[in-house]
Amino acid sequence: MVNTNQFIPGLEGVIASETKISFLDTVNSEIVIKGYDLLALSKTKGYLDIVHLLLEGTIPNEAEKQHLEETLKQEYDVPDEIIQVLSLLPKTAHPMDALRTGVSFLASFDTELLNREHSTNLKRAYQLLGKIPNIVANSYHILHSEEPVQPLQDLSYSANFLYMITGKKPTELEEKIFDRSLVLYSEHELPNSTFTARVIASTLSDLYGALTGAVASLKGHLHGGANEAVMEMLQDAQTVEGFKHLLHDKLSKKEKIMGFGHRVYMKKMDPRAAMMKEALKELSAVNGDDLLLQMCEAGEQIMREEKGLFPNLDYYAAPVYWKLGIPIPLYTPIFFSSRTVGLCAHVMEQHENNRIFRPRVLYTGARNLRVED
Amino acid sequence: MVNTNQFIPGLEGVIASETKISFLDTVNSEIVIKGYDLLALSKTKGYLDIVHLLLEGTIPNEAEKQHLEETLKQEYDVPDEIIQVLSLLPKTAHPMDALRTGVSFLASFDTELLNREHSTNLKRAYQLLGKIPNIVANSYHILHSEEPVQPLQDLSYSANFLYMITGKKPTELEEKIFDRSLVLYSEHELPNSTFTARVIASTLSDLYGALTGAVASLKGHLHGGANEAVMEMLQDAQTVEGFKHLLHDKLSKKEKIMGFGHRVYMKKMDPRAAMMKEALKELSAVNGDDLLLQMCEAGEQIMREEKGLFPNLDYYAAPVYWKLGIPIPLYTPIFFSSRTVGLCAHVMEQHENNRIFRPRVLYTGARNLRVED
Repeated sequence: MVNTNQFIPGLEGVIASETKISFLDTVNSEIVIKGYDLLALSKTKGYLDIVHLLLEGTIPNEAEKQHLEETLKQEYDVPDEIIQVLSLLPKTAHPMDALRTGVSFLASFDTELLNREHSTNLKRAYQLLGKIPNIVANSYHILHSEEPVQPLQDLSYSANFLYMITGKKPTELEEKIFDRSLVLYSEHELPNSTFTARVIASTLSDLYGALTGAVASLKGHLHGGANEAVMEMLQDAQTVEGFKHLLHDKLSKKEKIMGFGHRVYMKKMDPRAAMMKEALKELSAVNGDDLLLQMCEAGEQIMREEKGLFPNLDYYAAPVYWKLGIPIPLYTPIFFSSRTVGLCAHVMEQHENNRIFRPRVLYTGARNLRVED
Repeated sequence: MVNTNQFIPGLEGVIASETKISFLDTVNSEIVIKGYDLLALSKTKGYLDIVHLLLEGTIPNEAEKQHLEETLKQEYDVPDEIIQVLSLLPKTAHPMDALRTGVSFLASFDTELLNREHSTNLKRAYQLLGKIPNIVANSYHILHSEEPVQPLQDLSYSANFLYMITGKKPTELEEKIFDRSLVLYSEHELPNSTFTARVIASTLSDLYGALTGAVASLKGHLHGGANEAVMEMLQDAQTVEGFKHLLHDKLSKKEKIMGFGHRVYMKKMDPRAAMMKEALKELSAVNGDDLLLQMCEAGEQIMREEKGLFPNLDYYAAPVYWKLGIPIPLYTPIFFSSRTVGLCAHVMEQHENNRIFRPRVLYTGARNLRVED
């Protein structure tokens, strides 16, 4: 029997879900996704392969992959009302707030929300995968008083997503690296946002609601918001020396430094970070500008030596996204877009084998007060 | 040490938070709120007393209560854009979907979202308590192509809320009973929606995001959605005999029957249900129509005898709301409005003593698959 009388802050190490979707095997440094190692897959497979694996259970053959891409392309358009809602937001809104509202609003166009059958949830997952990049890219354009960008059907899923953000067709290298970042962000066991989605789904609430909650979770600076915080530090610092100084300064003030450490990986490097570091090298080689790479390497060394901490995915994804020409406030929305597939898989699994989450508390407040009257 | 290797579905009995806010003491049948028993309080105190207790820590004196009411009244109005967003929803949308979108949208008007200080969160809590009844009532009106109803400053907080829903100034009895229902729904330890809000807040995401996730959670039929499901059963059944037949039929098909049982209260009656049953009696005495009361009592008996299950708050809140002239799709949004105060208290507590929620999984899927290439 578990001793349930002990309070473990943050449920650290507590098993909260049974899953066939993924598992962080820190002993073997594997991110197990449906039996495969995500890191191995990322070397030869693309985002749509991972989508097929997570939602259909198998790595697709060429025909299946093409069919999947067609399915998603048919879902690119969003209702006009979504664009109108985004247009009503104050221009100071963060794209994560826009995305949270957009995903929530999208629910109301689903006429069979009470249906939680596998096939219906699967259809919704493809709709969300089709539409969320559109909402992400256009929330930014609309908040900056720019015209919405229409999706281009002749580009790949990832190339179109990047095109909708930057307004430029990406090079082959840019497309490959952006796609790889989506692979690496696609699924990662039970981080706070996935846990949020499963907790919500366990009331038998719908997929949209669960994902809306996950956007809210991912927005937090201790979670997805970290990639934006990293890039803001790099921008502030400007030079290698500046970055070293900034980090030493933060360390001496005992401030939390974003982009380092991970509850599960602990004192090991997040293996996804190493892959994004490679991507940063490839992008730096294109025009010979390796300043961000040098800054990041210097920061990596300082944190390892001073704190014994290693970079996580966000640390190297940030400069990669910068070099791809992506505005900083879209880093976390892109993380969410990629993770949509993992979140949908988890919500579907929760709906299909459910027990409502309802834990207890350790009450440390007052007792036995009475009103005098 | 806790044995963290065991998976407990739904975290049943697991302590997930330390709190000074509330505790369900099932041994003494008390709902402890900041040291007081909510059930005892509900006999002499109103919703604003509970709001003051939860947010300021004390039962207010007359002057403090008046000041609180003034504070909330100044927050009744919502930005025009909220009304426009609600107007863009398909008319088939559920008010809980409208509310989730409305709360999410409201965030963008807060110009200091990154500030999580106690005083700032407290100000937000009062803004939300002022505005959410407006969003709830007017989402219904707008979805039914009716003109939005403006708040009336000369009514009490609860009377105005009920007025905005029904368009009629309530009688003294109606006001008292509606207010009591808000008291009973105000706070209840760590149900799924409160847990959701704390999980989201633990990433240091903002109060609005945490509450948006809580709306999504409360919408589920295993949670807040239960009160609407109860009233739909009562409507379907029409008569005492009809209701008995409906319940026996569901029992024979082993269908889940909403409004009965509670994970924490288990085989005891939810003490809040008894208080709402009294309210139903009072309302029935006004015009001598006790059909719903008779139906509910018959159902209570069947469930006790056949399943050993007792009514929960939703079971008796549903017919009370019906008799108050409230449209069924607003039952859960009203539950949320009332619970807003408890949710805000929990999010503030989480922000002030935080550890991010990040549990682990029991992985039962495939291992060691490889791509052949």
